[in-house]
Amino acid sequence: MTPDLARLSINQETLKQWSLPELAAGCVAAGIGSVGLWRAPVQEYGVERTAALMRAYGLSVTSLCRGGFFTAADTGSRAAALDDNRAAIDEAAALGTDTLVLVSGGLPDGDRDIAAARERVAEAIADLAPYAAERGVRLAVEPLHPMYAADRCVISTLGQALDIAERFPAAQVGVVVDTYHLWWDDRTPEGIARAGAGGRIACFQVADWVTPLPAGVLLGRGQLGDGCVDLRGLRELVDAAGYRGAVEVEIFNPALWARDGAEVLAETSDRYARHVA
Amino acid sequence: MTPDLARLSINQETLKQWSLPELAAGCVAAGIGSVGLWRAPVQEYGVERTAALMRAYGLSVTSLCRGGFFTAADTGSRAAALDDNRAAIDEAAALGTDTLVLVSGGLPDGDRDIAAARERVAEAIADLAPYAAERGVRLAVEPLHPMYAADRCVISTLGQALDIAERFPAAQVGVVVDTYHLWWDDRTPEGIARAGAGGRIACFQVADWVTPLPAGVLLGRGQLGDGCVDLRGLRELVDAAGYRGAVEVEIFNPALWARDGAEVLAETSDRYARHVA
Repeated sequence: MTPDLARLSINQETLKQWSLPELAAGCVAAGIGSVGLWRAPVQEYGVERTAALMRAYGLSVTSLCRGGFFTAADTGSRAAALDDNRAAIDEAAALGTDTLVLVSGGLPDGDRDIAAARERVAEAIADLAPYAAERGVRLAVEPLHPMYAADRCVISTLGQALDIAERFPAAQVGVVVDTYHLWWDDRTPEGIARAGAGGRIACFQVADWVTPLPAGVLLGRGQLGDGCVDLRGLRELVDAAGYRGAVEVEIFNPALWARDGAEVLAETSDRYARHVA
Repeated sequence: MTPDLARLSINQETLKQWSLPELAAGCVAAGIGSVGLWRAPVQEYGVERTAALMRAYGLSVTSLCRGGFFTAADTGSRAAALDDNRAAIDEAAALGTDTLVLVSGGLPDGDRDIAAARERVAEAIADLAPYAAERGVRLAVEPLHPMYAADRCVISTLGQALDIAERFPAAQVGVVVDTYHLWWDDRTPEGIARAGAGGRIACFQVADWVTPLPAGVLLGRGQLGDGCVDLRGLRELVDAAGYRGAVEVEIFNPALWARDGAEVLAETSDRYARHVA
């Protein structure tokens, strides 16, 4: 039986070894109709050229990663971050995706006030949300695992992300539910229900948790089924909360990048069918 | 002015380069009256011999680390874990400390049900608490940072630790508040207040958070003041919640272990005075 891949989206960082044309051709050959993209490789290939490529292959872009990094306290850095986020919104619109993922940024050097940093995130989103809405783009606040709170993302739980998102219309600001970041938290089920009830689930990403973590803890995500996350249980919670969108596989793992892309994609589809769908 | 070190306790893992006699002599020479001990070096030196050493130097033992690791699902492993924890309780009693720190353990291989693992922790504590109480030892449930949830400790927040501790009399089961594990969580202040109101704060440990994290993420704790944790703010919250016990410095960091112990101890006392007291 062919697995049902209708909801499966492949985030391009899962297949970092592939160029954008390889990704587009590879996904279509494998029966996958959606991808998640990242700004740097899209900029390198060209934003309009990427958009044309996606159209040529009939691929949907489920999200663009990522805006954010607006926790700086000084005026100059904040203005530069807002400018860069407006560019990211423009890129998302050009790519035809309605979802720009936001990773908030960590604590500035020497700063020990994480509550104030979170408040600066909300202020930046207030500045950007109308600009994004005018372009048909929704901002998706992503809580990252607490191990990134200091240097990457001061938003660590779904509750914190919703506390910010709910200050804005649901059509303008949503949240990302990523199993890698949220699996450990006993409040995640209530957060998913709350997010669903408010129509806030903008993106659902999956990766598994494996140990030991590598130095820097960025590139240690596990292939679906290799770790301890109840992926199907979380997918069922998201569905029960009313989410009908894509299930985007986003795995940062050099061991996957070292292998043949088509082989990794086939494995990922199979794992998705067995552990998530 | 001599800093007020009355509440300062040095966990021996902060000065792993020192033997127990070096630790005892070094602390007394530095005007520090309390230490936290670990089972392995105590067993190696001898439990009764360690107790005699502490008495000879007039040192208080503020905690023994650690019991726990009782998330196994099979009967044999669970029985072995309970036996080992009864031995740890006996050791704590022999050392004259009223606090045995419990690190719950992670998920068994292939297990994806973290809620059930947490419930097994509560069951083990139900088994052990009366035994400990008869010996004058209180079990102190320690929430560890969520990055350890899979392989070391399924209890990740102060709220989760209290949810378990509060099933038992406060005299039998308390919690550990460790700044390294809890600093990132916006619910930590309410957890500290709840713990204090119930008389549940059995131990307060301090370390700072520094990045990048090393591989395995065990030995990356920062010297007080080197990182982004509002140590004084958390100490004030613990005090405001009614805690009057020791402030135990527990830093796992090979860079500190490579230096002269007396120098590290002097630096730690100074940092404690500047950033915590």
